[in-house]
Amino acid sequence: MKIYKRIFLPQGFKANGLASGIKKPKRLDLALFYSEIPAKASCLFTLNQIQSASIKVDKQQLKRSKIFRTIIVNSGNANCFTGKEGIKDTKRIISELAKILKIKKEEILVASTGIIGKRLKLRKIIDSLPKLVDGLSYSGIDKAKRAILTTDTFIKEATIEINLNRKIILSGVAKGAGMIFPNLATMLCFIFTDASLTQRALDTALKIAVENSFNRISVDGCMSTNDTVIILANGLAGNKIIDKGTKYFDIFSKALNRLCSILAELIIRDAEGATKFIKIKVKEAKDVDEAKKIAFTIANSPLFKSALYGENPNLGRIVSAIGSTGIKIDERNLKIKMSSLKKKDIYLEINLKRGRSSTDVLSCDLSPDYIKINAGYN
Amino acid sequence: MKIYKRIFLPQGFKANGLASGIKKPKRLDLALFYSEIPAKASCLFTLNQIQSASIKVDKQQLKRSKIFRTIIVNSGNANCFTGKEGIKDTKRIISELAKILKIKKEEILVASTGIIGKRLKLRKIIDSLPKLVDGLSYSGIDKAKRAILTTDTFIKEATIEINLNRKIILSGVAKGAGMIFPNLATMLCFIFTDASLTQRALDTALKIAVENSFNRISVDGCMSTNDTVIILANGLAGNKIIDKGTKYFDIFSKALNRLCSILAELIIRDAEGATKFIKIKVKEAKDVDEAKKIAFTIANSPLFKSALYGENPNLGRIVSAIGSTGIKIDERNLKIKMSSLKKKDIYLEINLKRGRSSTDVLSCDLSPDYIKINAGYN
Repeated sequence: MKIYKRIFLPQGFKANGLASGIKKPKRLDLALFYSEIPAKASCLFTLNQIQSASIKVDKQQLKRSKIFRTIIVNSGNANCFTGKEGIKDTKRIISELAKILKIKKEEILVASTGIIGKRLKLRKIIDSLPKLVDGLSYSGIDKAKRAILTTDTFIKEATIEINLNRKIILSGVAKGAGMIFPNLATMLCFIFTDASLTQRALDTALKIAVENSFNRISVDGCMSTNDTVIILANGLAGNKIIDKGTKYFDIFSKALNRLCSILAELIIRDAEGATKFIKIKVKEAKDVDEAKKIAFTIANSPLFKSALYGENPNLGRIVSAIGSTGIKIDERNLKIKMSSLKKKDIYLEINLKRGRSSTDVLSCDLSPDYIKINAGYN
Repeated sequence: MKIYKRIFLPQGFKANGLASGIKKPKRLDLALFYSEIPAKASCLFTLNQIQSASIKVDKQQLKRSKIFRTIIVNSGNANCFTGKEGIKDTKRIISELAKILKIKKEEILVASTGIIGKRLKLRKIIDSLPKLVDGLSYSGIDKAKRAILTTDTFIKEATIEINLNRKIILSGVAKGAGMIFPNLATMLCFIFTDASLTQRALDTALKIAVENSFNRISVDGCMSTNDTVIILANGLAGNKIIDKGTKYFDIFSKALNRLCSILAELIIRDAEGATKFIKIKVKEAKDVDEAKKIAFTIANSPLFKSALYGENPNLGRIVSAIGSTGIKIDERNLKIKMSSLKKKDIYLEINLKRGRSSTDVLSCDLSPDYIKINAGYN
């Protein structure tokens, strides 16, 4: 397995990004990802009950078919809580884009991120589509990956190369920053591979990878309305088609896990205002749900996060968070280890001595800058 | 019903407070509340699974009897996560205090607040007991009410006078500040009345009052290990004993509700670092639990709290918090009203159009000062 810190598109994929005018001052805000041939898609969305128009339309699209050619993404506006008009706007973008790309409307997926409750600047987006399509290229990914960002301060990207008789590329790009909590974090993530897989292999591999990565991170315990992870697999590597339960599936799944874990960690490392990065391991829990609950309750405690920011090893913040989960902890068995808070990377280990399950969660501190960023976010 | 903004002890109660040396620099940290005659007690404690030695010992005491004479409270140290030694320390204090007061050990309740995971400075406390007892007086409440505070910036106190053929006084004092979330908030509250009630009337009235007050506030969603509410009723008013289901019970219960609501609001008004006070009303929910869940999810969202601090009326923060509860909201029916964020007191109303239940929750914003206070708390 070779890992690259940049996103290189697999063969057959192109991308582009531009500033359509949604964001002011004029920053890149519209991205297009495109496969030259139809690709299998697998998608995971937020469990928030209020979902963006983009997600609602994607879900309609996925009912018809799992074969897609392109993903159009805007940042700066979530197109959420925008009612019927929001859905109409999204469908209008899809139908205009289909005409220009000369593909079927059914082959287009959509994602959005940004402010909630405001209509899209539809005219600006529509007017930008010809230029967006015209500029599609292999290297256009460098614009696309910047166009999906909001308050992110750097790009989350990676590429993994594996060999399944044929060389196979998996690459991905994500945006994060704030409102990060499963399921999923507030995040968009787009993954591309030239591997050939069955639909169920693709779906399973994505589910496993997301559960172990994006569902194990939290910035602030706030679940977004727009979280979207999409993988497109166009099969151009020409490998023997990968099905579930095979050795090749395990290798592919492991690579996808790794890719998602790298991107998830980058999201936490770029958490809004964060000055500390923490891995919280909960060991010897009765089951994984219990381990996750305890890890996330600590990770999301403003008291613990403030103590972390202050490099103040306040055991009480951890103990009270654990107890507040309602899980019947025996405090005599509770073992807590924490590395020095003076460093940027912190490791916290909780041993419950209740069972055999464990989990890792990644999180960060709470700093005055987080408040400043979100006090002014518009 | 007459309401006073200060605590005046009902007849037969005395108090005192002093600086025993737990807190540095020397601040008041030890309080004693005392009834000249045995009083009925009712108590409610945190639901955190990790509980202080004080609470564990109180629970043992309450199994034996509900008749008490005194409450000893220390601030500056929670005596929590201190194992068997913590319990031994508490029992030692009780037995020394019983000797000096010439009462039974079984007549003493205990409460603590402060840092978790550190042993009490037992010697300092024991050595202070004679002086603490010696200074017991009616006006000693003015020292006692200051001795229970931690990061509080003002005293939470009130007195209510009602007439049930006899004049009856209910008065209370509380500490709050941070780590405030049901059940209960991180808080200590001590209530005194000269009313004569049956045990079940006292228990019921306290449960109702706490549910409508301290269980409806949140500073940061963090549940403490030491939350304690104690009411002592010594019966010296000489009223006909109040039982449940009577007219007099309703009047007493209403007064206790009011007293607890005043103290709960004061806790939120003194929330650590807060610059805004918000009442969140959730209307037309299917049931009260649903209304509470939505109100508290908004109240505890760091994103919403940051927007509140920034006077930024960001609808998305509210909508995404509501959706994240998992309650199946129909966004077309969702009505949200919010008063101007420029003022200190904010009113937010969410109408779900799903049923007939409603609830109010009190909360506050999240400011850089909250982080500063908790970054350095020791």
